Amino acid sequence: MQIVKNIIDLKNTLKSSKKEEKKIGLVPTMGSLHEGHLSLIKAAFKSCNEVWVTIFINPTQFNDPKDFESYPKDFENDIKKINSISCNINVFIPESVNEIYQDNTNIDEFELGFINTVLEGISRPGHFDGVATIINKLFEIFRPQVVFFGEKDFQQTLVIRTLIDGFFPNIILVVCPTVRNKNGLALSSRNKLLSANSYKQCGIIFDCLLFAKENYLKIDYPDLLRKIKSKIEKTNDFNLEYFEIRDEITLEHFGKSNDKGRFRGFICVKVEGVRLIDNLLF
Amino acid sequence: MQIVKNIIDLKNTLKSSKKEEKKIGLVPTMGSLHEGHLSLIKAAFKSCNEVWVTIFINPTQFNDPKDFESYPKDFENDIKKINSISCNINVFIPESVNEIYQDNTNIDEFELGFINTVLEGISRPGHFDGVATIINKLFEIFRPQVVFFGEKDFQQTLVIRTLIDGFFPNIILVVCPTVRNKNGLALSSRNKLLSANSYKQCGIIFDCLLFAKENYLKIDYPDLLRKIKSKIEKTNDFNLEYFEIRDEITLEHFGKSNDKGRFRGFICVKVEGVRLIDNLLF
Repeated sequence: MQIVKNIIDLKNTLKSSKKEEKKIGLVPTMGSLHEGHLSLIKAAFKSCNEVWVTIFINPTQFNDPKDFESYPKDFENDIKKINSISCNINVFIPESVNEIYQDNTNIDEFELGFINTVLEGISRPGHFDGVATIINKLFEIFRPQVVFFGEKDFQQTLVIRTLIDGFFPNIILVVCPTVRNKNGLALSSRNKLLSANSYKQCGIIFDCLLFAKENYLKIDYPDLLRKIKSKIEKTNDFNLEYFEIRDEITLEHFGKSNDKGRFRGFICVKVEGVRLIDNLLF
Repeated sequence: MQIVKNIIDLKNTLKSSKKEEKKIGLVPTMGSLHEGHLSLIKAAFKSCNEVWVTIFINPTQFNDPKDFESYPKDFENDIKKINSISCNINVFIPESVNEIYQDNTNIDEFELGFINTVLEGISRPGHFDGVATIINKLFEIFRPQVVFFGEKDFQQTLVIRTLIDGFFPNIILVVCPTVRNKNGLALSSRNKLLSANSYKQCGIIFDCLLFAKENYLKIDYPDLLRKIKSKIEKTNDFNLEYFEIRDEITLEHFGKSNDKGRFRGFICVKVEGVRLIDNLLF
């Protein structure tokens, strides 16, 4: 395992890899790794002969400074977990924000279009612009052949796709399935911020998605939404921020899209103030 | 959707794709598609801008002519299922075996090495040589950037990896997780060959893998094997062909490998004479 902490060392290391024409796989993360991240790293390790995991809590994708402050950090354990997959995986942990942004945390401008105006795009203004900015920088540095992202942040994968289509046409995006705990809760670093009691109740979020998948063609939307809201808010400190059904490519609302798309349910629940998101293909 | 049935048309179609420098994703199948295959096709559709599904029951990978005869065929439904994912997915169904083998079904020689001498390699002599032969042909024809295979046939993914490392260093192999029914049974086209009653009991196969994962460090191997055999053979017409724990890269036996590898349980159960295989990362 190589652990690289600054851009100069990274560029030197990468220069030698490129010469050997390796297949480079990139797994960008914000650390605090769980089995969901590890499944991405395992997939990369199977697909590529050089794997880089980046661990960087990117300030420009946080619209809420408190959320940035409280985002879990666990670098030492992250390294151990990566090493347990293989000692041949490389890690880039920039030692400061400046290493990436060089005294300038401006957000680059990308035309993300409609997909940036719904769901998380509305709830977290500027979030996806920050995501696109950092991922663009990482793609430029690593020039990977393959990149790995999780289905849990589904809207984010559409942002990455837009970036790839526009600027990195040769990069292959692999979207890995959401990993869930035994109650169905999608793994997320933010789950650590929940009380033990609330954590136990969180299976209701995925249950609601399954309920919606089973019923969205039978019950009309306002009624379905009411039922889901009441299921979620039965539990103290659980608040439904949104539940929506949208085309999984265009993110057009179900019923408003003319083509025969595939639809996906998207949900965001605030549990003790922590935003938990999930989604499911219908 | 384009459906192409012969090599000449296929080569013409592909020639025009290459010109546009599309990212071509290939999903080789033997048809009789189930949700496991569809998850591969969906993954390909997300990663690539041109997707080809091949449907070809490859005679050279069957060591047992009866197995070849009884292998389920359902081309019409296969096409419908593929179309339900997107009408932009292309299908290659060779109209005869000669279309691929040109009057010569000899098996090409590949140095598959140790991985071909264990598990399915022993149980189905010549099987992986047949797999390597057909996949080599498909890779040469399609020259894909990315290929998609299922984790259920895990040993097969190692064969594909060997082929790629030796002859197609630029191809990226994506291994997609096993899809299971609600009892945990890995989806397989062969499940159709089971009686309704046996089908219901098949959850025991995955249960045994979970049991082994939980206990392989606590119980010694002969005892573990005995317990698994007794769990499987409690049911009429269920016979354990093998259960083994091996390094997931080298396929060395657990305990015989010196490196700190990751291990995987591999199982094969004969149910009413139908061989069902499964595996799980430990």
